[in-house]
Amino acid sequence: MNKKNNKTVKIIPLGGLEQIGMNITAIEYEDSIIVVDCGLSFPDDDMLGIDLVIPDVTYLVENKDKVKGLVITHGHEDHIGSIPYVEKQINMPIYATKLTMGIIESKLDEHGLMNNVKRKVVSYGQTINLGCFRIEFIRTNHSIADSAALAIFTPEGIIVHTGDFKVDYTPVFGGIIDLQRFGELGKKGVLALMADSTNVERPGFTPSEMMVGRTFNEIFDDNVHHRMIIATFASNVDRVQMIINTAAKYKRKVIVDGRSMINIIRIASELGYINIPDNTLIEIDDAKNYPDEQLVYITTGSQGENMAVLSRIASNTHNKISVKPGDVVVLSSNPIPGNEKSVYNIINDLEMKGAHVINHNTHVSGHACQEELKLIYALTKPKYAIPVHGEYRHLKRHALLANEMGIPMENVKIMKSGDVLEVSNDTFDITGRVPAQGVLVDGLGVGDVGNIVLRDRQHLSENGLIVVVVTLEKYSNQILAGPDIVSRGFVYVRESESLIDDCRMVVQETLDDCLSRYNNCDWSKIKGAIKDSLGEFLWKRTKRSPMILPIISEV
Amino acid sequence: MNKKNNKTVKIIPLGGLEQIGMNITAIEYEDSIIVVDCGLSFPDDDMLGIDLVIPDVTYLVENKDKVKGLVITHGHEDHIGSIPYVEKQINMPIYATKLTMGIIESKLDEHGLMNNVKRKVVSYGQTINLGCFRIEFIRTNHSIADSAALAIFTPEGIIVHTGDFKVDYTPVFGGIIDLQRFGELGKKGVLALMADSTNVERPGFTPSEMMVGRTFNEIFDDNVHHRMIIATFASNVDRVQMIINTAAKYKRKVIVDGRSMINIIRIASELGYINIPDNTLIEIDDAKNYPDEQLVYITTGSQGENMAVLSRIASNTHNKISVKPGDVVVLSSNPIPGNEKSVYNIINDLEMKGAHVINHNTHVSGHACQEELKLIYALTKPKYAIPVHGEYRHLKRHALLANEMGIPMENVKIMKSGDVLEVSNDTFDITGRVPAQGVLVDGLGVGDVGNIVLRDRQHLSENGLIVVVVTLEKYSNQILAGPDIVSRGFVYVRESESLIDDCRMVVQETLDDCLSRYNNCDWSKIKGAIKDSLGEFLWKRTKRSPMILPIISEV
Repeated sequence: MNKKNNKTVKIIPLGGLEQIGMNITAIEYEDSIIVVDCGLSFPDDDMLGIDLVIPDVTYLVENKDKVKGLVITHGHEDHIGSIPYVEKQINMPIYATKLTMGIIESKLDEHGLMNNVKRKVVSYGQTINLGCFRIEFIRTNHSIADSAALAIFTPEGIIVHTGDFKVDYTPVFGGIIDLQRFGELGKKGVLALMADSTNVERPGFTPSEMMVGRTFNEIFDDNVHHRMIIATFASNVDRVQMIINTAAKYKRKVIVDGRSMINIIRIASELGYINIPDNTLIEIDDAKNYPDEQLVYITTGSQGENMAVLSRIASNTHNKISVKPGDVVVLSSNPIPGNEKSVYNIINDLEMKGAHVINHNTHVSGHACQEELKLIYALTKPKYAIPVHGEYRHLKRHALLANEMGIPMENVKIMKSGDVLEVSNDTFDITGRVPAQGVLVDGLGVGDVGNIVLRDRQHLSENGLIVVVVTLEKYSNQILAGPDIVSRGFVYVRESESLIDDCRMVVQETLDDCLSRYNNCDWSKIKGAIKDSLGEFLWKRTKRSPMILPIISEV
Repeated sequence: MNKKNNKTVKIIPLGGLEQIGMNITAIEYEDSIIVVDCGLSFPDDDMLGIDLVIPDVTYLVENKDKVKGLVITHGHEDHIGSIPYVEKQINMPIYATKLTMGIIESKLDEHGLMNNVKRKVVSYGQTINLGCFRIEFIRTNHSIADSAALAIFTPEGIIVHTGDFKVDYTPVFGGIIDLQRFGELGKKGVLALMADSTNVERPGFTPSEMMVGRTFNEIFDDNVHHRMIIATFASNVDRVQMIINTAAKYKRKVIVDGRSMINIIRIASELGYINIPDNTLIEIDDAKNYPDEQLVYITTGSQGENMAVLSRIASNTHNKISVKPGDVVVLSSNPIPGNEKSVYNIINDLEMKGAHVINHNTHVSGHACQEELKLIYALTKPKYAIPVHGEYRHLKRHALLANEMGIPMENVKIMKSGDVLEVSNDTFDITGRVPAQGVLVDGLGVGDVGNIVLRDRQHLSENGLIVVVVTLEKYSNQILAGPDIVSRGFVYVRESESLIDDCRMVVQETLDDCLSRYNNCDWSKIKGAIKDSLGEFLWKRTKRSPMILPIISEV
């Protein structure tokens, strides 16, 4: 398809790593850019020591003057987590629904940014104007309250971005996704649909949150004599409300534990998104005043996260809650791929301590399955489809679904982060690239850990390290001290003294050889020779390749 | 339950790590010990750099004279993988069915042990005598051919060990599990049942291998114009046979790739367990002589293993197979917990290169679900139940199932590795412990990597390392050279020069302070002071804690 005019809307996903985890998309038209979402992602297994990954927003920084604002679909980390980092680079006003904004504000506050960033709370159905764009927030269902889809009215047509969504006809709280509005927009004509791909591999419909409610009722019924600990996602405010309601119905006191859980419940109840019946919530220190069967703990850690409450309970390192025989522990979430082993380890630990762990039918997904996606396609009838939010396998499956829904394959694009897609009524082409690698955050360092550092960490983690220290006399190149061998993470030295002795001999020989051969002492040559000879010796002897770090001092 | 006499059978599981992965059990009566299975396990995520884990057989070594033989249920790594390591410590004769023995022999051969170890091939229904035990091999179904359950006739009664099993009424090859014999033994009276717990959380029956056959037919039917690559477990000989048969039916040539796949197919076809129609198998280098639609590759790597064939194809590092648009890749296995992310990454990589990946209905489990387990309990009607082969959560669920089948809870025992269970008609008690920690294998080193080394590797992997080198003059304690700072895996040094300069200053100050305060240069004090001051400085400045390694040379 060739461009017929110069006027196009550019859609530029900036989340690194094939959009896994991190959601941030720039939408540009002439001198206006809006940014949709601003998430972070958690490190892959091979990003050793990294705390989190944030997007590279070089393109936005370079086009600062065009950026009119940041619109947010909902309050999950993968959609809002990078806001403080990005706002430090491009100060832009933020638009979001009430609960979403509450969660964003607690982040801005932590980073001391509350006075620097303009914010506007938007209601469902409300429209805002940003440059040449008009953006309408549309009610959806998801695993966090106040989620929105966006209708972005551009000079070239309407772009609908679903955000993360599902269709829940019987939501426990709040209304049904505004399907009518999706239909109305479809009647007007939707240029492009950007829809959630997470569950596109699953046939049928995602069950309603109501289903979990029924399970909770059964669990409370079956376990009236036992203390209960329920772990779930802090951000799933509706789930937490449901647990609190069930607890109140069964006359149990509720203790909330876990930093993020306490934080979200505070925000949600201040803003009226959670309603805690009087005398239900008690402090953790007051739990001792009640018998076990009158207590429910609501905690974080359902994904097996190392430092979260449930993990600390399971490993007996929580200073206020210790699990005991008879306790009932409910995991109200499914393991996200990659977390399975941690979750199962926690279940094993809890059951070994006598707890009964329940993790069946205690969770429903927040993302649309195939039939829900088809429904949204049927309502919006977009000209173009741009699958978003998923790994490549999801995006590709989504492309097939869009095609099944009557969209020709040339009108469906799977984008990689950094791709620039130009869209208009007669254009639908990837025409360029902008920087969009993830930026690694380690402690306070943003971007100071790159591939070389990670490669070193990988090497060190698998094989450990041998430091060789030798002191030479200036000019004469006589060895004054050493060679000394220090190892860490290689072998247990006390039991391998002879190996270390042999290492020292190998280095000594190499040194003697080098020093006798070269008049001018070339340290890099000596270091190279030590690495080679010691490396070869160790591989033959142990089939291992520790990092070898020769250090030469000159006196 | 108290002991009524001194005569008991001792059952001692020796596989470390709550029996996950590694299967090895000692069964002892007076002066006779037999060992059932001798597996290895693969390292957990926190065992950095470890290649594999083998059992601690100190107890067997200490009781060498009693050990009469090793009986093996089937040829999977978690049941036979440690045989060469253990045979080097305790030379005992091995008893196994034909294919199982073939696989064991290829291992013994690799370790140069073929002439040192006595071996006897046993048929289904055959019985062997080892000390005071008589052991009968019983036909079962599993994901590897020639699997057996064991009836162990002891002076105190019959112990039935199922091995890994399922009930397949329509096996593609071989017979149905010998349910009649289980029933016959039950009629005689079974003292204890040790049964497979892997799938105890799943209701119903595990589907027959026949189901996978039907799927393969459909896949071949649907993709007559495409090259196919099918990855599965090398050890699943029947699955491989089925793929070869389907390939022959559709007139495709088969290329086998992957060291373990080639090895097992060689053994299986030598022993008559696999039947390759003439002119079906071709060499990988001859593939170029055939059009794509006449080729099927059978490879390893269906679990996302790093170095296996499928992973190398997906990352374009295989020197003979490169994936291209139109290729159909079939994953004929489900991800084992912990492997999900690697498997999904490979799927993403393959699909990005234009392949179509099929991984639904292409696998059935080799382990019994709830109804199959109930069937075995109904047939054997054991007095005692000892759940084996599973994580704690599985063993516990299995205990409940045994209880549902009428066995009182006091007659069910969940054992930990190293527990000594004494069993007789009137005894069923854990009465002691023997050593049973896993032994870590890293390269050629067996047991030379312990917790200290692993802790160092963990530390290095997350935070990297800073080496501080300083040379002091003997007696005077003058600094002759340094302090020099060398870092690896910490920050990208070129961009952090000022940080490293500041580190040097912090160390210099600490040194000056130490050297002025102490007359006698106490190196350990100086090193401690450097670690403290530099650690504190770095934490404040970066919120990271690299390993700090101060090295002092004296000249």
